[in-house]
Amino acid sequence: MSSGGVLGLDVGGSSVKFLLADGTVRERPEPILRGRRETPADDPVEGLRAIAEEVRGTGAEPARIVVSIPGIVDEERGAVIRSTNVPALDDTPLAQELGARTGVPVTVINDGHAAAISEAAWGAGAGHEDVFVLALGTGIAGAHVVRGEVVPGAHGSAGELGHITIEPGGRVCSCGRRGCLETVIGAPALAEAWRAAGGSGGPEQLLAAYGEGSREAASVVEHAAEGLAEAILTLCALVDPGCIVVGGGLAAAPHHLVSLARDAAMARASFHRIPAIVPAALGGWAGAYGTVLRGLADARVALP
Amino acid sequence: MSSGGVLGLDVGGSSVKFLLADGTVRERPEPILRGRRETPADDPVEGLRAIAEEVRGTGAEPARIVVSIPGIVDEERGAVIRSTNVPALDDTPLAQELGARTGVPVTVINDGHAAAISEAAWGAGAGHEDVFVLALGTGIAGAHVVRGEVVPGAHGSAGELGHITIEPGGRVCSCGRRGCLETVIGAPALAEAWRAAGGSGGPEQLLAAYGEGSREAASVVEHAAEGLAEAILTLCALVDPGCIVVGGGLAAAPHHLVSLARDAAMARASFHRIPAIVPAALGGWAGAYGTVLRGLADARVALP
Repeated sequence: MSSGGVLGLDVGGSSVKFLLADGTVRERPEPILRGRRETPADDPVEGLRAIAEEVRGTGAEPARIVVSIPGIVDEERGAVIRSTNVPALDDTPLAQELGARTGVPVTVINDGHAAAISEAAWGAGAGHEDVFVLALGTGIAGAHVVRGEVVPGAHGSAGELGHITIEPGGRVCSCGRRGCLETVIGAPALAEAWRAAGGSGGPEQLLAAYGEGSREAASVVEHAAEGLAEAILTLCALVDPGCIVVGGGLAAAPHHLVSLARDAAMARASFHRIPAIVPAALGGWAGAYGTVLRGLADARVALP
Repeated sequence: MSSGGVLGLDVGGSSVKFLLADGTVRERPEPILRGRRETPADDPVEGLRAIAEEVRGTGAEPARIVVSIPGIVDEERGAVIRSTNVPALDDTPLAQELGARTGVPVTVINDGHAAAISEAAWGAGAGHEDVFVLALGTGIAGAHVVRGEVVPGAHGSAGELGHITIEPGGRVCSCGRRGCLETVIGAPALAEAWRAAGGSGGPEQLLAAYGEGSREAASVVEHAAEGLAEAILTLCALVDPGCIVVGGGLAAAPHHLVSLARDAAMARASFHRIPAIVPAALGGWAGAYGTVLRGLADARVALP
């Protein structure tokens, strides 16, 4: 393979997905190799090294490795500050340690950012210069991607649409404040509202019941959609994205909620330009594609 | 002067401010020439040409002209779509017309963006890579400046902090929605609240009375500051700026309101990183400095 090849490692709580891409690819690459290995809990750096070794066993010689991590990452130092699902990675200078064990330069990025850049460039946001990628699930995460790069904010914490206030004085949020979008449309909030309305199960059952015409489900879903509509209006006023990509666990359920929210936002808009809101396209592999994308971008910058 | 010299023209409703800067200057320039002429209502393009002519009469040969306009600008075409204060400029391909009359390349930019880039680079935001510039006055405008450039959004309308909802179902806003920040802290809203509390005069009198210990003024100012605090929290969650610069008519009044708002935002923050909030430094000349800054930046890009 070409010397610019990239090995991308997307570390999750239960598995590490990996992709190997040829460095000459400029469009969304068909990976040369892809796979998934169990996340080693005890010595994750050794586990990542073993994957790189296995990839090399196929004759490939990746020129760089990019690792995406769920949690707080110091990209400049290539260090994991705190990992959401792999405690053994906390406070690990991962780029340095994995680089030393593999002899290949290593970059470490946040997994939400990785998924966002790949959805923006190769997924549902392709063709737009200015994309906001939103992940709806237990928590709500977001990232604003302009011309392929995340606009990170001064402290790396921009895009927290889940923690803007939608219902002042409302329910207590995981962040400690009240009435954040997450308390209206996060998966636990939906499940709780659904049970309070007499339903059983979680958000999936709620959305299924809504699809079947349940009035109780409709009132829960419509309330959530109104909250999301208000968040979309704030996002359009402040960030003005050209496209909103919605992924995450909830978005995989029927797209009712998101399309209701868009209708409500359109009806309530004044000067706001409400862009297309589209479901994410890369599914669970978005983070892995993002690592490869980042590696290819870094290679372009590094080349003379 | 050097061949890279820039003539900046900041067009306002009553006057045009102009600055001439040497193209070799890299720091905030001491302008070679500065002045102010009445805005010609009938034929503003001719008025701008006359200023350029007058500047050339001093022996200067600016290599480019940058004009800032209050209103909606199509930067790519160098056209004024709709001007806030100079109706004769509406639907004018200004870059083309002024360029033809002066023989010098002309760039047209929005005046809020001009003021924001100069405050970020040479004014109160100097030294920060990531600055949000907020103008408090009758209306409320904002612009997010990252490494010297405005992040414009997909339709050029990002940064509208004045139109995020602070009080759902609250007062009707100029934009048609209810409870926007502008309805809580815009100058007319403050004046109305002050009169309702028994005060006389406008925001300046309100802030003066607050400074003198008036309880009625305190309740009005504190309510406004709480609204601004909520807006700051939303801004920090979504944009995460490294510095917030506050200018505009209201900020020229004592800084009570802004510092109260920052205290309230700090007290209410959860994960939010509340940055320094500083008063704008360039005053009424921020827009003019921005035109020069933009001209110098364009010259750097254009040079081989």
